[in-house]
Amino acid sequence: MGNFQEATALDRRSETEFDAELDPQWSVGGKLHGGYLLAVLGRAAAELSPSHPHPTAISGSFSAPPDAGPARVTVEVLRAGRGLTQLRARLAQNGKPCVEALVTQGLLDDEGPWWSGVEPIDIPPEEDCVPAPAEAPGAGFRVDLMDVVEQRLDPRVVGFAVGKPARGGVISSWQRLADGADWDPLSLLVALDPVPPVSYDLGLSGWAPTVQFTAYLRRLPAPGPIRVRMTAGDVGGNRMDEVAQAFDSKDRLVAQATQIAGVRH
Amino acid sequence: MGNFQEATALDRRSETEFDAELDPQWSVGGKLHGGYLLAVLGRAAAELSPSHPHPTAISGSFSAPPDAGPARVTVEVLRAGRGLTQLRARLAQNGKPCVEALVTQGLLDDEGPWWSGVEPIDIPPEEDCVPAPAEAPGAGFRVDLMDVVEQRLDPRVVGFAVGKPARGGVISSWQRLADGADWDPLSLLVALDPVPPVSYDLGLSGWAPTVQFTAYLRRLPAPGPIRVRMTAGDVGGNRMDEVAQAFDSKDRLVAQATQIAGVRH
Repeated sequence: MGNFQEATALDRRSETEFDAELDPQWSVGGKLHGGYLLAVLGRAAAELSPSHPHPTAISGSFSAPPDAGPARVTVEVLRAGRGLTQLRARLAQNGKPCVEALVTQGLLDDEGPWWSGVEPIDIPPEEDCVPAPAEAPGAGFRVDLMDVVEQRLDPRVVGFAVGKPARGGVISSWQRLADGADWDPLSLLVALDPVPPVSYDLGLSGWAPTVQFTAYLRRLPAPGPIRVRMTAGDVGGNRMDEVAQAFDSKDRLVAQATQIAGVRH
Repeated sequence: MGNFQEATALDRRSETEFDAELDPQWSVGGKLHGGYLLAVLGRAAAELSPSHPHPTAISGSFSAPPDAGPARVTVEVLRAGRGLTQLRARLAQNGKPCVEALVTQGLLDDEGPWWSGVEPIDIPPEEDCVPAPAEAPGAGFRVDLMDVVEQRLDPRVVGFAVGKPARGGVISSWQRLADGADWDPLSLLVALDPVPPVSYDLGLSGWAPTVQFTAYLRRLPAPGPIRVRMTAGDVGGNRMDEVAQAFDSKDRLVAQATQIAGVRH
């Protein structure tokens, strides 16, 4: 029932190759979620960098949406250093590249920042936020991901659902894994690409497929829910850049991401 | 004399392989500049995507600093689509991978944004800003790059040079190519990784080597100088995330980047 560890499990075939079984539960409108796919690649990268267990930076290019089911993961070590290991990884299906990634593995701890210019997140208490259902009225597709990630949206920005977008270019949410597991650096990759895309808040109701996505994992999250702020940058030329920042229950930035997505405006 | 086109020129050896001659002029403290190296990879990617001449997104992982001189570039097309071409590219020297990149090629135009949440840049007029010399007193190394990129720093943030950093986590600058050429999507990759690193403004005088870097090119720049704002995010665990945004003479965001860099704090 949607266990993240099981959904990202790998079978090692050789020094550099793994078999994955992609789980349809981690999908949006029938398409596997990008953060989930990167987590599968991150897990493979960790197998090749035992002294650097955590993804600290990961960039992915999404060239084809894989189907649920068997997929092949290939990893290459670019450099194994003292403080970090740099790798590239590919997820392919039937020989076709689907996701290509750059991964920097390291060792995270739970210390807070030495300095931060990051704006704290502003969201009402979890119980005052609005649960995001797997079947939103009028959405036109099922968000299976919402059965495994419990998400509550800031009530000030849910107007898009009734045709009244707030148009601030920000959507914030509380997120928990539905099976009760705490967040870790790999599962945070899922949290950093939240549903719906922030373009909904700008009145753009079409889907916004990710083209490239880059995440930095900054420190180990404290137990409990995280809060994620998704912010739109510049929307033009049928492209939108978005920034996501995830804060743990101790108010620390634990992960951040940027993506460039397609959007019709 | 530091011409960007010549410095990034390639000799095609096969369908997917190119020879580059890395130019020592585009370096900082004897190390070739990361944005310059990505531009070399971007030029190779463009050769394999004739209908998509511009890099619209590029992520690079820097695993080893190449020396000036001959290097080999290898490119692989991941997907050639109607609106974009996705590729991976590698710069290697003596068989050792130095820079691995994900590239999305597209076709940019010069239209402004449909919507923007990006804060406009705030910097005094170019003539009131402070030229950044190739040999800064007390820097301890030569910034050859400053002979080919004319950079003027916001005078409010140059205190770091005399031991009085402003500690705002922001360094803004005017930038021109010294040979008088206008900026283009490839050369903007150099502008997006400015010298000095923004950590200087936080009182951290050590170098901040880029680990991973991601740029989005958003539209064709108008002729004339650009203004670049570099902002520090979260500094901790010996890592710093930085955001760079480049604005053209029409005040439009033309390019943006994020990087995660090593830093001693």
